Amino acid sequence: MMRRDRLVLAATLTAIFTADLYFILLPKLRSVGQGSGHFCQCGPNNLTLPRHGGLATPQLSNWTSGQLDGTTPEPADGGSKLGRLFAHPLYNIQPPVLGPEERLLQAEQLMEYYRRKVSRWERHMKLYSEAAAMSNISVTEHEVTFDPDASWLKFHLGISRFALYSRDDPAIPQLVKDMQSMAVVSADYTQDEKALKGACDCTQVVKPSGHHLKLALKMQNFAKAMFKPMRQQRDEETPEDFFYFVDFQRHNAEIAAFHLDRILDFRRVPPVAGRLVNVTGEVLQVTHNEDLRAVFFTSPANNTCFFAKCLYVCKTEYAVCGGPDLLEGSLSAYLPSLSIAPRISIPNPWIRSYTFTGREEWEVNPFYCDNIKQLYPYNSGNRLLNIIDMSIFDFLTSNMDRHHYEIFTKFGDEGFLLHLDNARGFGKHSQDEMSILAPLSQCCMIKRSTLLRLQLLARPEFRLSDVMRESLEGGPLQPVLSEPHLLALDRRLQKVLRAVHRCVRRLGEDEVITKDFVKSTARPQTATEMKRVR
Amino acid sequence: MMRRDRLVLAATLTAIFTADLYFILLPKLRSVGQGSGHFCQCGPNNLTLPRHGGLATPQLSNWTSGQLDGTTPEPADGGSKLGRLFAHPLYNIQPPVLGPEERLLQAEQLMEYYRRKVSRWERHMKLYSEAAAMSNISVTEHEVTFDPDASWLKFHLGISRFALYSRDDPAIPQLVKDMQSMAVVSADYTQDEKALKGACDCTQVVKPSGHHLKLALKMQNFAKAMFKPMRQQRDEETPEDFFYFVDFQRHNAEIAAFHLDRILDFRRVPPVAGRLVNVTGEVLQVTHNEDLRAVFFTSPANNTCFFAKCLYVCKTEYAVCGGPDLLEGSLSAYLPSLSIAPRISIPNPWIRSYTFTGREEWEVNPFYCDNIKQLYPYNSGNRLLNIIDMSIFDFLTSNMDRHHYEIFTKFGDEGFLLHLDNARGFGKHSQDEMSILAPLSQCCMIKRSTLLRLQLLARPEFRLSDVMRESLEGGPLQPVLSEPHLLALDRRLQKVLRAVHRCVRRLGEDEVITKDFVKSTARPQTATEMKRVR
Repeated sequence: MMRRDRLVLAATLTAIFTADLYFILLPKLRSVGQGSGHFCQCGPNNLTLPRHGGLATPQLSNWTSGQLDGTTPEPADGGSKLGRLFAHPLYNIQPPVLGPEERLLQAEQLMEYYRRKVSRWERHMKLYSEAAAMSNISVTEHEVTFDPDASWLKFHLGISRFALYSRDDPAIPQLVKDMQSMAVVSADYTQDEKALKGACDCTQVVKPSGHHLKLALKMQNFAKAMFKPMRQQRDEETPEDFFYFVDFQRHNAEIAAFHLDRILDFRRVPPVAGRLVNVTGEVLQVTHNEDLRAVFFTSPANNTCFFAKCLYVCKTEYAVCGGPDLLEGSLSAYLPSLSIAPRISIPNPWIRSYTFTGREEWEVNPFYCDNIKQLYPYNSGNRLLNIIDMSIFDFLTSNMDRHHYEIFTKFGDEGFLLHLDNARGFGKHSQDEMSILAPLSQCCMIKRSTLLRLQLLARPEFRLSDVMRESLEGGPLQPVLSEPHLLALDRRLQKVLRAVHRCVRRLGEDEVITKDFVKSTARPQTATEMKRVR
Repeated sequence: MMRRDRLVLAATLTAIFTADLYFILLPKLRSVGQGSGHFCQCGPNNLTLPRHGGLATPQLSNWTSGQLDGTTPEPADGGSKLGRLFAHPLYNIQPPVLGPEERLLQAEQLMEYYRRKVSRWERHMKLYSEAAAMSNISVTEHEVTFDPDASWLKFHLGISRFALYSRDDPAIPQLVKDMQSMAVVSADYTQDEKALKGACDCTQVVKPSGHHLKLALKMQNFAKAMFKPMRQQRDEETPEDFFYFVDFQRHNAEIAAFHLDRILDFRRVPPVAGRLVNVTGEVLQVTHNEDLRAVFFTSPANNTCFFAKCLYVCKTEYAVCGGPDLLEGSLSAYLPSLSIAPRISIPNPWIRSYTFTGREEWEVNPFYCDNIKQLYPYNSGNRLLNIIDMSIFDFLTSNMDRHHYEIFTKFGDEGFLLHLDNARGFGKHSQDEMSILAPLSQCCMIKRSTLLRLQLLARPEFRLSDVMRESLEGGPLQPVLSEPHLLALDRRLQKVLRAVHRCVRRLGEDEVITKDFVKSTARPQTATEMKRVR
């Protein structure tokens, strides 16, 4: 693999220069030649997006990328838009070959960790089975397997300084498949949940504890996933009077966020699968936690339900129920344990006030970014650009709840930002929360690579809603997003591009569109090869 | 008034005997003459109710009351069904003239109480205004009036041993009108709410404290009403997995229950009005309670909202919001203060288990009523029949939350049962909870007077849904009940009559249909006179 990369290095360098010529230099020359009034050439055939009121806003979808046609392979048939997207040269710029220090984990270290886990589990099961037999508790026992080829192991081993996974890693679709169907051997509260134990005073917790219904599920091969059950129907919108911090967590938002992140080529969201979980067979009967067992009950309609631990007895209106046992949910792959891959959690500089009336400085000071730019770690490197990437991602999903972000300590300040916990996105399709874009609109900076992909996704032949719809097809839960939510993505993408355009008009492209600091190398890839990624 | 009653006594005694002849004796003779198979004479024109599956159940709507036609004044025009109902002889049997001991309150006692309240209020306002001025709190001050003709005073003075109000008391429609429109001078938590203060541990409270959003409002003339805000849209049904004890409280159920109780001629529910309350001007700006002021906030959609005190900060998803200030709610007239008219709260013998899995004895023992019949106070007098009346009322509204009932201590064991707190009715129109009828179906007893009215309301010309629809018209909140809920009343009424019929078939009419113990007297009334009641 690594040798092959070196062999194609010379060829791909040429490809990069060609891409740069097409995407950056040529459009610039043309726009200089044609004057700045030339933004609205796209006819109604090219853009089916709703026009934004009476405002004569420029249609930016083909701005600077209007000349991509020549470089895009356009099959005559109506084939896979997603396949074509991933085959596009922009999605085939590869990071440099990874040295050991650029990988999060070493194989030996992880295998050792896995072996220890399995033997601890076997000891525990032996003791537990004896104790359970004595107390007459029936627990379903599943065989666990030690599988050195497990997809979750490969996912963990593939995490690098640049992203959570590489574009063509077949372990990712395999992991999604495993989470969709593999036998669950145990269920428990998450560590977050356990940390709340006995401290359920809701005045001390910003997020309503009633919403903490997430559980940790362990699969037969020791893959671990966080299960978030369905709380909201697809056609329901978040009530307009809800604050973002009391909004429901949506399992479908978790699933959609993983797909969107992959389509944006960020690869900063761990794999998420949809699954119809049997809450009786796959949670109640396999948990060894008495507290968890105690929150299960049978509803008046004879469905199996459970509710958050600290709301015992009187808060069953918070409960989630199977029908009678099956319940939709999202399963998000766990990252490597903090004990082998520590992460640091950092407050988002554009954090919101988690109170009714509070306003954070960024909400009232239009020059807030100037201060941030002076401050470590945002005063050098890619960190601020990464924050802006994150704000674009969150704006597209309309997730207002990004109070912290995490990075792997191993990679230091230049590590990528993890986009964890996306369940509060996709709450209202009818509204675009412009304040989420504040990092972009206030700092007026964006990575060139990000912008190019956004422009690509604004074009009819790669339209974001179309590739998202295609990407979300095929899982067990259908549809993941309702049509209005898919179409909102296109509308919001236009607004991102318009925000960039306003910055460019004000400050010029050189100031706004920033060269990525990553030294990249490219390896051309065929659409066929890419199929494996999905 | 009292002299006039005596004068018409002789005439009305004749009317009673005629009624008895028509309703009881004649039908009995006819049914004997025609055999017991004669239950299904009503053609499809008479009954538009859905036929119940393939079961050949007798249509009981005209059973024993099939001969009422002759006594019913049937105007040629399509006029008011409700007016005709209230003009019917069955609704014109008057209780005997009331002696002082048969009234709940004496006028002097109540006026003295009222005067004390007003002067205490004036003292309080003087001190409060000074304190508020010092702390810079702005409170809207309304003039209060001492009005010896206030409708709420008349309502309180009219409460007797037999009912909360008499059929023709003009104070009742006036009180409803006052509650709909009179200026609110203060708002506060209810005593229940205050009792919860600092004891919001939800493991200790059966009803979820988040639902305690009711407030006490005081009107300009010192009328006091309990405000329950809207929590649920008219077309929403209670989720099937909710236990009855965590169901929402519905303001429209409170309003509808008052009307139904009046139509059933029980008159055991205090008057309830619908009102669009301005939560800013009529609650926030007039409360003197800092705790209440503290739970108000402005929602992201700029609506004024408030939430239950003990859920501060994290439970805003429980909040109710105006639009931006106006919020639908029910206003239930307060009963006289416990200090001048004490009441006793008694567990319902058919109480439900307020746990997930518990079963009460009545749910498993079909002979439960035999035990109850032996026990004081159900072993004599009307108490058990009153419980059965209550169960019929609750079955019609589908209220499963009747854990206690109250009676005025002054009237001892023969006092009528108060049907307070009806907000958990009308949750599901598509389901009839037969277990609510257990007192009727297990004891197989019903007051003759109750049965006669139920039979009347099952007839097309007085159809319960029609008279309810008419009764609910005209208030400020429209519709109070959706059509499916109105139609459910007819369906449930059929089920009540069918339950009686099963008992009669098993035990005979003499065992089942019990003569009321109230010595009655009648005073014929015209429909015109009755109009005033509405």
